[in-house]
Amino acid sequence: MLVRMRPQADMHAVQEVVRTLQDAGYDVLQLHHGGPSVIGVNGRPIAPDLPERLHRLPAVEAVVQVDRPYRLAARDARPSGSMVRVGDVIFGGPEPVIIAGPCTVESREQLLRAAEAVRAAGAHLLRGGAFKPRTSPYSFQGLGEEGLRLLAEAREVTGLPIVTEVLDTEHVELVAAYADMLQIGARNMMNFALLKKVAKTGKPVLLKRGFAATVEEWLLSAEYLLAGGNDQVVLCERGVRGFDPATRFMLDLNAVPLVRQLSHLPVIVDPSHGTGRRELVEPMALAALAAGAHGLIIEAQPDPEHALVDGRQTITPETLATIVRRARALQAALQEAVAVAD
Amino acid sequence: MLVRMRPQADMHAVQEVVRTLQDAGYDVLQLHHGGPSVIGVNGRPIAPDLPERLHRLPAVEAVVQVDRPYRLAARDARPSGSMVRVGDVIFGGPEPVIIAGPCTVESREQLLRAAEAVRAAGAHLLRGGAFKPRTSPYSFQGLGEEGLRLLAEAREVTGLPIVTEVLDTEHVELVAAYADMLQIGARNMMNFALLKKVAKTGKPVLLKRGFAATVEEWLLSAEYLLAGGNDQVVLCERGVRGFDPATRFMLDLNAVPLVRQLSHLPVIVDPSHGTGRRELVEPMALAALAAGAHGLIIEAQPDPEHALVDGRQTITPETLATIVRRARALQAALQEAVAVAD
Amino acid sequence: MLVRMRPQADMHAVQEVVRTLQDAGYDVLQLHHGGPSVIGVNGRPIAPDLPERLHRLPAVEAVVQVDRPYRLAARDARPSGSMVRVGDVIFGGPEPVIIAGPCTVESREQLLRAAEAVRAAGAHLLRGGAFKPRTSPYSFQGLGEEGLRLLAEAREVTGLPIVTEVLDTEHVELVAAYADMLQIGARNMMNFALLKKVAKTGKPVLLKRGFAATVEEWLLSAEYLLAGGNDQVVLCERGVRGFDPATRFMLDLNAVPLVRQLSHLPVIVDPSHGTGRRELVEPMALAALAAGAHGLIIEAQPDPEHALVDGRQTITPETLATIVRRARALQAALQEAVAVAD
Amino acid sequence: MLVRMRPQADMHAVQEVVRTLQDAGYDVLQLHHGGPSVIGVNGRPIAPDLPERLHRLPAVEAVVQVDRPYRLAARDARPSGSMVRVGDVIFGGPEPVIIAGPCTVESREQLLRAAEAVRAAGAHLLRGGAFKPRTSPYSFQGLGEEGLRLLAEAREVTGLPIVTEVLDTEHVELVAAYADMLQIGARNMMNFALLKKVAKTGKPVLLKRGFAATVEEWLLSAEYLLAGGNDQVVLCERGVRGFDPATRFMLDLNAVPLVRQLSHLPVIVDPSHGTGRRELVEPMALAALAAGAHGLIIEAQPDPEHALVDGRQTITPETLATIVRRARALQAALQEAVAVAD
Repeated sequence: MLVRMRPQADMHAVQEVVRTLQDAGYDVLQLHHGGPSVIGVNGRPIAPDLPERLHRLPAVEAVVQVDRPYRLAARDARPSGSMVRVGDVIFGGPEPVIIAGPCTVESREQLLRAAEAVRAAGAHLLRGGAFKPRTSPYSFQGLGEEGLRLLAEAREVTGLPIVTEVLDTEHVELVAAYADMLQIGARNMMNFALLKKVAKTGKPVLLKRGFAATVEEWLLSAEYLLAGGNDQVVLCERGVRGFDPATRFMLDLNAVPLVRQLSHLPVIVDPSHGTGRRELVEPMALAALAAGAHGLIIEAQPDPEHALVDGRQTITPETLATIVRRARALQAALQEAVAVAD
Repeated sequence: MLVRMRPQADMHAVQEVVRTLQDAGYDVLQLHHGGPSVIGVNGRPIAPDLPERLHRLPAVEAVVQVDRPYRLAARDARPSGSMVRVGDVIFGGPEPVIIAGPCTVESREQLLRAAEAVRAAGAHLLRGGAFKPRTSPYSFQGLGEEGLRLLAEAREVTGLPIVTEVLDTEHVELVAAYADMLQIGARNMMNFALLKKVAKTGKPVLLKRGFAATVEEWLLSAEYLLAGGNDQVVLCERGVRGFDPATRFMLDLNAVPLVRQLSHLPVIVDPSHGTGRRELVEPMALAALAAGAHGLIIEAQPDPEHALVDGRQTITPETLATIVRRARALQAALQEAVAVAD
Repeated sequence: MLVRMRPQADMHAVQEVVRTLQDAGYDVLQLHHGGPSVIGVNGRPIAPDLPERLHRLPAVEAVVQVDRPYRLAARDARPSGSMVRVGDVIFGGPEPVIIAGPCTVESREQLLRAAEAVRAAGAHLLRGGAFKPRTSPYSFQGLGEEGLRLLAEAREVTGLPIVTEVLDTEHVELVAAYADMLQIGARNMMNFALLKKVAKTGKPVLLKRGFAATVEEWLLSAEYLLAGGNDQVVLCERGVRGFDPATRFMLDLNAVPLVRQLSHLPVIVDPSHGTGRRELVEPMALAALAAGAHGLIIEAQPDPEHALVDGRQTITPETLATIVRRARALQAALQEAVAVAD
Repeated sequence: MLVRMRPQADMHAVQEVVRTLQDAGYDVLQLHHGGPSVIGVNGRPIAPDLPERLHRLPAVEAVVQVDRPYRLAARDARPSGSMVRVGDVIFGGPEPVIIAGPCTVESREQLLRAAEAVRAAGAHLLRGGAFKPRTSPYSFQGLGEEGLRLLAEAREVTGLPIVTEVLDTEHVELVAAYADMLQIGARNMMNFALLKKVAKTGKPVLLKRGFAATVEEWLLSAEYLLAGGNDQVVLCERGVRGFDPATRFMLDLNAVPLVRQLSHLPVIVDPSHGTGRRELVEPMALAALAAGAHGLIIEAQPDPEHALVDGRQTITPETLATIVRRARALQAALQEAVAVAD
């Protein structure tokens, strides 16, 4: 069961609801950020008169029984959608958010050059891997903490907040000390211990979809974060396993409008991993936004041919600038076409 | 090997090349429509001096060795892309083509009402199934020839050319006698006997991708049509089998820019079958166009709830009108954003 | 609704039931071969008193409401399983049936040599393609009728009944004039026109599963044959599309016990296409039988390296002989182990 | 590069090779258990004269260049296969190993009853989840350390070694203190931090295949364990994501003979998760062994209907006893049939 508070409800009103529920013996979970308060109830079966009693409280907007396995992540919890703020950047608002940068932090010079270039091209956040999940134990595993320090320096220089992946419960605090947004990668979407620990940091999280995860499983992984007390979650579709070797992954854009219907959380798309081919990144980035994505995460750096990892799918800052310009034109046109319709 | 003729090459020049090749003992295949002539050579290995000799003919633009299993369908055959004309409608030009109509022709009244409604909403062609491929032998299999007659009447009334599926070699001539464009459905993409027979009709063809076909297999099925003498082929992505039951199929939009890179044939998208859910049709239609699709085929009729087949994925003419309006805005914005960039 | 007749029910008793149903306005479908008669009712809703009335007829064993979309193919129609006879060979009995031979009939010498070799190795039927479904229009498409004549000659010489694929409604009669069993290939599993026409031949049919068909879709394609009057249908699992390029297809052996539970039709397995790798054929052939398959269809010929088609997955007659010997040992051991248990 | 030592090579001989390599500046990795020593070289490119020099050492059997991304896991490292010992049980020998028990440890009584029952049915190891990876944060997550204590008690009582899953780097030491074999679940196959930490425990590991992992990715995850110093690794195929909702997963038995060809590590199969349906467990267990699996892991307990987790796929001890008996008969028959052939 969910209790949705009115937008103007103050902390006292929220506390009153929480206390009522706790007195009745329930576990209480809350969404604080990015929209009106929402209170989730867990534990014992719902007493028949409880919804009625809650409805009578003036600050309560709605009491909803959710029939899906995820609750706090369900659209019903916040029908108008949530916003997630990272620095001055807002996911879930009218402007598409562009995250860009190299796949992997390789060196100070490479990172700073890339960071400047993606900032100039119009990116809002900087991405870059310090700890890398590599299929082979013999591949370069990232610079680790040194990479984090370089990311922090790049933030200093460019003003861009940084997003970087955390691979392991043991590094959560370390990565959280540097990053503005923690990325949970596709391979870890069902690493529930990691989800629980990242939830406790209170940092905004970018939760990538596992490459064979159903949309329901993905939203349940988000629910781990929300139920763990962290409601600043942005979802990211990054391609699923398919049968056609022509592309590295099959980008499942159906998932974008579906997630927007099922959940209030913002959702962005990674056309770099989702195609694995540089020349498909621009059209699929635009397709993602037309499908309703709130933003993009793109691998871009000045010298893609020399990237140590994933160069095949990395674009240049020039292509990124084109994407940003066309993304804005597309968004404006679609919003205007709606406005005319109304 | 492909011989690309200059745009201004006349029939005599083409004939000269054809004769040269036939004299040398080759089978010759040609693309006539929708762009400059292209001549494909088949049969014996290429004589080492042949490319050189052809190059010397003034009307020859290029002689290309194709390293993919499809040849006439390869982008190299016509780098600037082909156009396919159905009545006054052009696939492959700057305007997205909208095909719409009911899943199945059920009755005269239903069809005429739907045809008028989709024409008013901005559709360029009318779709509607007379022969239906049904998974169960006990399901309604379509009205057959009576359905074709009703489609012809609807064309009379609305002026919209008609697209309808042909299921079987034995009905090819019958369907071709009524339809302006023959559809080969996903289940028949590898029905090679049907491809060969449809090739001989000379009618424009809409070739849907099989729901577990690779892009290469799809282009090879198109090659059956082209090599069979029919070069008026439009490809259609309609969703592939995926692991997530949340949508009926997984719409593989990666395939759109990929096909545009690999082939000169126009490609459109079917967001109705590709999602199986009415509420996802609009966002995925726009996404398809942003990915570079040359058009859309959409199931629409005034009373989707009462459709005998596929009602769950059928939209209303009102939603169709919104899609058409937003599609135009999107296309204009993207083209302008390119123009500014150049 | 299905009416199952007692094993000893004679033709008169069956006719009585059929007449009762027809008089009540129903379409009637029947299973004749390979077990007790079964009568399927179709058309109007079932009158409430009808099951009761039928039950009262002494030759009626059971009246069953089937809640699945396929009916005649459902296990309920014949709980003890059906047998399909081709010459002296019985599919669905205690002995696993081995079909073997070259992928494609290439020449008289190749075929006769292969036929002798697989017979000597223990095969019960001879396979070989005369009409080949080829992904590329430029690939060898088979010898056509000449191939059929060679197959008939090989039958003459070896005594093995022959199984060969029919690709097209226009060739059904031709192929049926030569073959003992008609194969419908994976690409044609949903070629419903072909299913309907093959049903009318009355020849035993080998129905391969489409490579992205669900088990339910497969059984519905079988239902097309059964409802079309042909109840001599053997199913064949031959691998589905998967995401791992390490094998050509993913052999779905789960489908074998599942089909045996859902349907009374015999089911065999094709480990050649299902793996695409010669060295995996033997272990997967044995696995198929252990999973409950009633037989195997295997590509085998004396000189696999020189096969024009699919040599990579073709085994030698020596390996075939090993498979046959181990298959018998396995079958005997498993049956004995059951016997001990009972 | 791999250096394979002769079976009779002693520690001194191995040390000599290691020293030679280290002196030349290489990283050295070793396989100690379950067969002759193998030494893997990593780091700098191989000096041209190095293989030659190593060959001259009398205790060196072979020097192999491996052209696959995994090296220590490659079949070349130990062509005759590895054995992994857990207590008195040997994976990779002639006898199939049976692991059985409840999905989840729910209570002392449930576990002890189940443990006794599976021991009596012929199981060699006891499975049972103390820490459970649950898709929903609201589902029962296992008893944790209490569950481990109960497993230890069950081992005490039955004499069966215990296998249980470790979900998280933070619990590795705790789980290793109780378990005889550590299971890494499908969702964690690419949790590289976990693989590295589990490697250090020196405990035998059961590495499940991720449900969308290619065979190559799976072997690379095994390589993380081997390169981390733990060469006691048993692989487990447990089903991959498929498109047919008829079964929970698609059991990919092709992977079994493929892994046996590519790697020396033992491989077992989980027909419980691989089908998700109790009635398919027996046939698929037998199929797995016929395909060449070295053992099975099966969910079994006296009262499957009341299992808190996965009851739908749990079998009774009676069915387990049948599987064990038939498995032995099958194995004996197949080995005898080989013996006759040789």
